[in-house]
This record gives sequence, C-alpha cells and structure tokens, in this order.
Amino acid sequence: MQSNIKQLHEQLKAGDFLALARCITIVENELDGYASLLLQLHENRHARVIGITGPPGAGKSTLVNALLHHWLKENKKIAVIAVDPSSPFNYGALLGDRIRMSEYYTNPNIYIRSLATRGALGGLSAKIIEITDLVKEAPFDLILVETVGVGQSEIEIAGLADCTIVTLVPEAGDEVQTLKAGIMEIANIFVVNKADRVDAEGLYRNLRILAHEKANGTDEIPVIKTIATEDNGIDTLACEIKKFLADQKDLPEKRLHLITEKCWQLIQAQRMKDINHNKLKHELALAIKKEDFNLYAFTNDFLNRSAK
Amino acid sequence: MQSNIKQLHEQLKAGDFLALARCITIVENELDGYASLLLQLHENRHARVIGITGPPGAGKSTLVNALLHHWLKENKKIAVIAVDPSSPFNYGALLGDRIRMSEYYTNPNIYIRSLATRGALGGLSAKIIEITDLVKEAPFDLILVETVGVGQSEIEIAGLADCTIVTLVPEAGDEVQTLKAGIMEIANIFVVNKADRVDAEGLYRNLRILAHEKANGTDEIPVIKTIATEDNGIDTLACEIKKFLADQKDLPEKRLHLITEKCWQLIQAQRMKDINHNKLKHELALAIKKEDFNLYAFTNDFLNRSAK
Repeated sequence: MQSNIKQLHEQLKAGDFLALARCITIVENELDGYASLLLQLHENRHARVIGITGPPGAGKSTLVNALLHHWLKENKKIAVIAVDPSSPFNYGALLGDRIRMSEYYTNPNIYIRSLATRGALGGLSAKIIEITDLVKEAPFDLILVETVGVGQSEIEIAGLADCTIVTLVPEAGDEVQTLKAGIMEIANIFVVNKADRVDAEGLYRNLRILAHEKANGTDEIPVIKTIATEDNGIDTLACEIKKFLADQKDLPEKRLHLITEKCWQLIQAQRMKDINHNKLKHELALAIKKEDFNLYAFTNDFLNRSAK
Repeated sequence: MQSNIKQLHEQLKAGDFLALARCITIVENELDGYASLLLQLHENRHARVIGITGPPGAGKSTLVNALLHHWLKENKKIAVIAVDPSSPFNYGALLGDRIRMSEYYTNPNIYIRSLATRGALGGLSAKIIEITDLVKEAPFDLILVETVGVGQSEIEIAGLADCTIVTLVPEAGDEVQTLKAGIMEIANIFVVNKADRVDAEGLYRNLRILAHEKANGTDEIPVIKTIATEDNGIDTLACEIKKFLADQKDLPEKRLHLITEKCWQLIQAQRMKDINHNKLKHELALAIKKEDFNLYAFTNDFLNRSAK
C-alpha cells in the first residue's frame, strides 16, 4: 500500500491525470493511504491558485470558460476545481452548458474536477484545502477554484487562493450592500459580468466607490467589466490577474490564517477521535432524564471516564 | 470564592434579580467562579423557554412587548433575553423604543437582559445556552429569548426553546422561499405581523401552504396574524403557545441535539486547552517558509511535542 501511494504520488508529480484523479478520490473519501499521501505533499509555490466566487447566476462558469480559452493560447497548464453545485463543470448542470465545456475535457493541458457539496460546508472546505494541496503537486501553472456565493464558507476558504475574483451581475446591485463586509474582505479583483445589461453602470460605480473607500490611499481593488459569453473584457481581466500575482508578497496573512485554522482542525480531530458522537448522545439522553442532571458535571465525568 | 458562588446561587434560586444579573455577568465574561457556578445548576423543567426569531424589522420586540403585557395580567414571572443587537431591549436601540419598553424595567415580575453579539456567532450561541440554563434556576414561569434572523445560528440554538415562534412581515414574502428549509425546521408557530399591510394575506397563504406540505397528515404548524402595535391577535398567539407547551413531549429531539453539541464543544475546549492558537500560528509562519513544509507532517510533529 505504502509503495503504491508513493508511486501514485510520483505519477501525480509527473502530471499524470489518471494518477491525480485517483489521488483526489483517495483524499475525498479518506480511503486507504489517505494520511500517508497527505504526508508526502510539500508546499508547492509554482502553481498559482485563482479563486472565482460570486452568487448563483453571475456567470462564473462562463468566465472560467473564457479564461481557459485565453490561457490555452499562452500554452498554460490549468486545473479547474468546481465546488459550485450549479456549475456546468459539475454533473447536475444543464446539458447545453455541459456540451459547451466538453471541448476542454479532452485537452491535455486542462484537468477538470468537480466536488460534490455534501453535508456540512465545514467538511467540504476542509476537503478543498487538502485537494488543492494535492493538485498543486501536479505541474500546473494555474489552478482555478470555482465556488458559489459569498458566504461564510467562501470567506473561510479565501486563503486558498493567491488571487480571489468576486463576480457580480447588474441584478446583484441590492446585494452589494449586504455582502459589503464579506466581499471587501476577500476580493482582489471585482468583475461586473453581463456588463451590457441595464444597471451594469450603476453596479460598476458602486463597486468603484466601495473599492475607493476601502483603499484609503493604497491601491484600489480593480473593477473589470466583462461580457464573458462574447469574450469581452477577458484580456483585461487576465492582465489584471497577472499583475496582481506578480505584485503579491510571498505569504499573504489570509493564507497563514487558513493554514492555522486547518492545522487547528486537524489537531482537534486527532484529540477528539476517541469520542464517539453517538455514544455521547446516547449517554446524554439517559442522563438528562435524571432529576439532578447537570451538563457541566456530566461533561467532567465523561472526560474522566474517557481518560482512563 | 466557592462559598460566595454558593450564596449567589441560593439568592438566584430565591429570585433575587441582582444575584441573577451578577451570575449572568460571571458566565458571560467567564469571571472567577464561572465553572463552579455552572456545576451547581440542574436541569430545571418548570420555566418554559420561548424563542422568538425572524428577520430585522419583523416587529419581534413589539411582539415581545405585547406578550409581556398579556402574561403580566395572568400574573406570570417572565425573563427576556434579547440577543438581537437591534432590539429595543438592547442598548443600541432608538430612544423611542427604549422609552416604550422602560415600564417593564421596574416591574418586579419581569427581568430583562440584553446580550451583546460579539465576534463569532458560535461563541455567542455557546453563551446563550449557559445563560439560559442560569436564568432557568430563578423562579420564572416563562423565559423569552429574542434572536434576529433565521440564519444558521438560530437553527443551531433552536433546541434552547420549548417553543419557537418565527415572525415574518408581508415584505418578507420573497424571503420565505429562501428561508424555507431553515424556518420549517425550527418554527413551532408562525406569526404574520403587521397583518394590516398589503400582501399580508399572500404571506399568510404561503405559510399555510408550507405548513400543510410539511405536516403530511400530522398537526400543521399554526399561522397567526397579529398587529402587535395594537395588541391585535396577541390573545390568540398566547393561546397557541400555551397549547403547544401543554401538548409537548418531555424532551424534544432538537433539545437533545443542542445539548449533545454543547457537550461536544465543552469536551473539545477541554481537550484543546493546552494548545495556544497564537503559538501555533507563529510556529506555522516559521515552518511554512521552509522548502519542505508539509502541513500534515507539521501537525503530527506538533501533537507529539504537545503530548510530552
């Protein structure tokens, strides 16, 4: 088993897509060899990770599509990890979208993997970190991670990306205020997609104002207008991404934060692995029926019994 | 110290509001005596906990106000815990609201406490559980817990309440679809407040349909129309609450779930207390600069060092 994992890891480093797919499946489902595979990874800084997030319907996948098209002309090797359940890269998508993307599925410079969102988001984001670490081992130039929404989970996993693009559409105008705190915290570049629609100018202006307020004398977050379906604005966007990555310092604080949280969770999982959640619930259900039940005393008692 | 806490606890059980206030402050800020105070509590089933939640502007506080008025006539002793930062029971409220509520601040049958929402919601909900356990020790008949929104945190703390009232207003019509999963999970009673407004009838009908779909042959969740500012519908609401509490089985599954999660968190905190988050971050910041950094190996190594 051990030598098998070592071999898979070597193939993955050499850029073998089949080995990569196999490794992701091992990590995603925590199959045999999971722990030893993760222990073989190293912090690879060649591949740059680009996060693309935004509300459903903002055209994130079309944007990814257009960016892939652009970077293929520059002969880049690119991986796409789609965590958005509505993404056409994912199985649940409309047939039309799937066909539009399918040209890339056979391209030797592109690897596409969709991750099912199952159960708790915390669980998923833990997996995305491990899978991104894995994909970084393969000789990609760029790794695109597409996630949906600008919710807590996106803010949590923002540290994954070297550059985070927040995509909005004119209809999102009202949401901008609500999302304000969240998106300002994670966005490195704003995209106003479907920029030919009414209200696009209003959204663009609002974002520019937000970016200006936030900047407070330093560099403002760029706001790029695109019409992804027509490849409009994509060159400008790619150029801004390149510039941002070139300017970037070695280890952004948000990445250190993410790694610290991930490490904290790993330690927690290790420390809690002797506690069976169902057993705890069962014991609580019995204890709580007693007249003198006290949760805090129960917990102390439970811990003492586990320590033996 | 120990005897001091014991005395405070005795005063609290006798219904001394000053002792109660002091105890809450000890728990809220984890002051000296915090742990020993919690260890003295017991699962009290006399006081019934009523949760009132809903989006901002749904008139939750006015509803609480009207319910207080109703129950005072029945000579009930009532505690109000307001976790909503925009609640008039809270300090941040408009002056007008504060004055409207102030009559209750001097009533010997009513205790009001607002909790500041600070930092992580997880931290806050952990505190609400402890504080509710504390308030239950005092001789109240009813404890109202007012929280804002129908977000993840409300679903998490739903187990606190013996009866959860979800308050919506006609303008919330569009939100109902979005909130659907969440509110159906936690609501025991729906209130359509500001029922004299346009669209109130539409919201009422939608909620009835949702309630009917959910019931699937069993009892439907009641939907009550109120105009809280005019005391309209409050008697009906109070009657439904009474009926719900009377019909209720001893320990709802959601309460067991909440207690299990709380116990899990207490165990986790205990197991992690030797790990200093800042120290971990600092060590990670140093380690990550090395060529061969591997998060999973670092974690194993860190755990081995801590175990010594």
